[in-house]
Amino acid sequence: MPETNFFEQLFTLSPQSEPAGLEFPAKLGFWTFGSQSNPAVLLPTCFNGQLSDTLPFLYAINHGSEPILPLSKYFTVVTGLLGGGESSSPSNTPEPYGGPNFPRTTYNDNIRLQHALCQRLGVKKLFAYIGFSMGGQQAYHMSTLSPDFVENMVCLARSARTSWHNWNVLEGMKHALISSSDFHDGHYQEPPKKGLRAFDRVFSSWALSPAWFRQMLWELLGFKTLEEYLDACWSGSGDANDLLLMLWTWQRGEITLYYPEDEGDFAKTLGRIKARCLIMPSRTDQFFQPEDNEEEVKHLNRGEFRCIDSVYGHLAGGGAGAKEDREFIIDKIRRFLFGDL
Amino acid sequence: MPETNFFEQLFTLSPQSEPAGLEFPAKLGFWTFGSQSNPAVLLPTCFNGQLSDTLPFLYAINHGSEPILPLSKYFTVVTGLLGGGESSSPSNTPEPYGGPNFPRTTYNDNIRLQHALCQRLGVKKLFAYIGFSMGGQQAYHMSTLSPDFVENMVCLARSARTSWHNWNVLEGMKHALISSSDFHDGHYQEPPKKGLRAFDRVFSSWALSPAWFRQMLWELLGFKTLEEYLDACWSGSGDANDLLLMLWTWQRGEITLYYPEDEGDFAKTLGRIKARCLIMPSRTDQFFQPEDNEEEVKHLNRGEFRCIDSVYGHLAGGGAGAKEDREFIIDKIRRFLFGDL
Repeated sequence: MPETNFFEQLFTLSPQSEPAGLEFPAKLGFWTFGSQSNPAVLLPTCFNGQLSDTLPFLYAINHGSEPILPLSKYFTVVTGLLGGGESSSPSNTPEPYGGPNFPRTTYNDNIRLQHALCQRLGVKKLFAYIGFSMGGQQAYHMSTLSPDFVENMVCLARSARTSWHNWNVLEGMKHALISSSDFHDGHYQEPPKKGLRAFDRVFSSWALSPAWFRQMLWELLGFKTLEEYLDACWSGSGDANDLLLMLWTWQRGEITLYYPEDEGDFAKTLGRIKARCLIMPSRTDQFFQPEDNEEEVKHLNRGEFRCIDSVYGHLAGGGAGAKEDREFIIDKIRRFLFGDL
Repeated sequence: MPETNFFEQLFTLSPQSEPAGLEFPAKLGFWTFGSQSNPAVLLPTCFNGQLSDTLPFLYAINHGSEPILPLSKYFTVVTGLLGGGESSSPSNTPEPYGGPNFPRTTYNDNIRLQHALCQRLGVKKLFAYIGFSMGGQQAYHMSTLSPDFVENMVCLARSARTSWHNWNVLEGMKHALISSSDFHDGHYQEPPKKGLRAFDRVFSSWALSPAWFRQMLWELLGFKTLEEYLDACWSGSGDANDLLLMLWTWQRGEITLYYPEDEGDFAKTLGRIKARCLIMPSRTDQFFQPEDNEEEVKHLNRGEFRCIDSVYGHLAGGGAGAKEDREFIIDKIRRFLFGDL
């Protein structure tokens, strides 16, 4: 495992954060690979993701007969999301901002910190910004906030706006957690196991797809019954206040929110993006419907839409789908970045 | 409002109930309309539905220039689901079976009680059994258990088996409720408001559809914001133990479970049905996918599939969709029952 570095900065939170404009001592956990003189690639983490969760993808773009983005040729940066437990998060921040007192940070905050880190690292431009789920939404936010900074962005299983349906799904997950008998308004002394399990049980139905359940694909993972699978994989993980912060960020993913001067004009905000964009939803994603991505692509100057025909729902975008799904993703990213489309 | 009658019987629960085969003093809340000498129609209630929730449908089949099923020509029976709060339920049953000690009853129990009621009322045959949601699943169970008793069944927004995905969705809703700080393992003295609200917030995203949220249809209902709508409509209703009993029944909706001799052969169990069947899913139902219904219809001796092209998700099947959705439902039931198909 690479060593985790920390970029620290006294940082002013965005006007959309709570409290708005707070001066906050933020730190960003990150990894780098390769030489800073090479073209740069940035991989952000996803919801409840650790830096190490990007390893399978790093492996996929570095192996095979013709690796897409070998570390020998690309300076690769991996950044942790605020709330992910490595970067500043409720779980790792001292008073007065620890636990439930942590400020509510936005995508804008994450992106500005990542940009500042890149400057510190001497990165003038990103050859590619590639993200899954909350990482994909970060790709949109980075390309919008710093249009000249990103040459190519890849957005996997995500959208430029958090739809109202998606917002409502998260609201349900949130209530399952905050209503639990062990959450204590975030002032728990021990992990609120009941709340985290309830949260995960609600999450699981959204993260996968009806087709995944119809095909009983937990059996492919070695579980005899669905209940065994749930017990092993969806019984709570992460810190509750961290999860709630990430949900908060996610719920406020609507990209126009950060450009009040665009007056909610979605086309206008997306029109800011200069990067070439590869938009890859999963056909069966219940959080992010492909039709929302098709709508987005209409407003992108240089956007391509490639849908992953997977039964693994949202998780397909993160490489947790079938072997063919992963091969499809890598193949389409290769063609997008290097031609032969 | 008609007077509610109660059919009471010392009743042996099904082998699939818990405790299996318990002798239980059950009561079934019901309404009747019209003369017992007329052909009979039975309308069961849905999940968390009261007898009065069938009134809009009763109105729809009794009004217009040519009412489909006028009370003057059909003996109409409305029955309440066990756990619905009118029939035997955790909330209305004295010790030793009150609250969390209420037995876990199955569709089979509901159907045998309804059948016994019909015998008491002198009904030899049902011209039609029409149900929405858990009512639709009851239609399947009645037609399978008593094949010669039902001439026509209409199943709205439901399937003959509770899919694993559906089971898992309910598992999430259940955990949101039972993990709450005010549920107290079902021994609450006051309604567990937090738990019921969490339950409803999770439920709301499943009951409607992404398209409904995309079109912000809460505005059509007179709400300015989604949060106002949630506060008014999805902040908890019903008794928590009652809801959990109904969920338990729903989770064990798999029809082959009740015919062990069929050894899980779905086609064989559905092949028992002699009734003509009208199967009407909603195109955007997230609980019950139309493709599952298409699969079912292949195994029905006389099944018809008519999909409601609605953005109202599951709720469209209960008449809570657009005016055109309701008209489509009534028109298709008319043609199904009386020709011109």
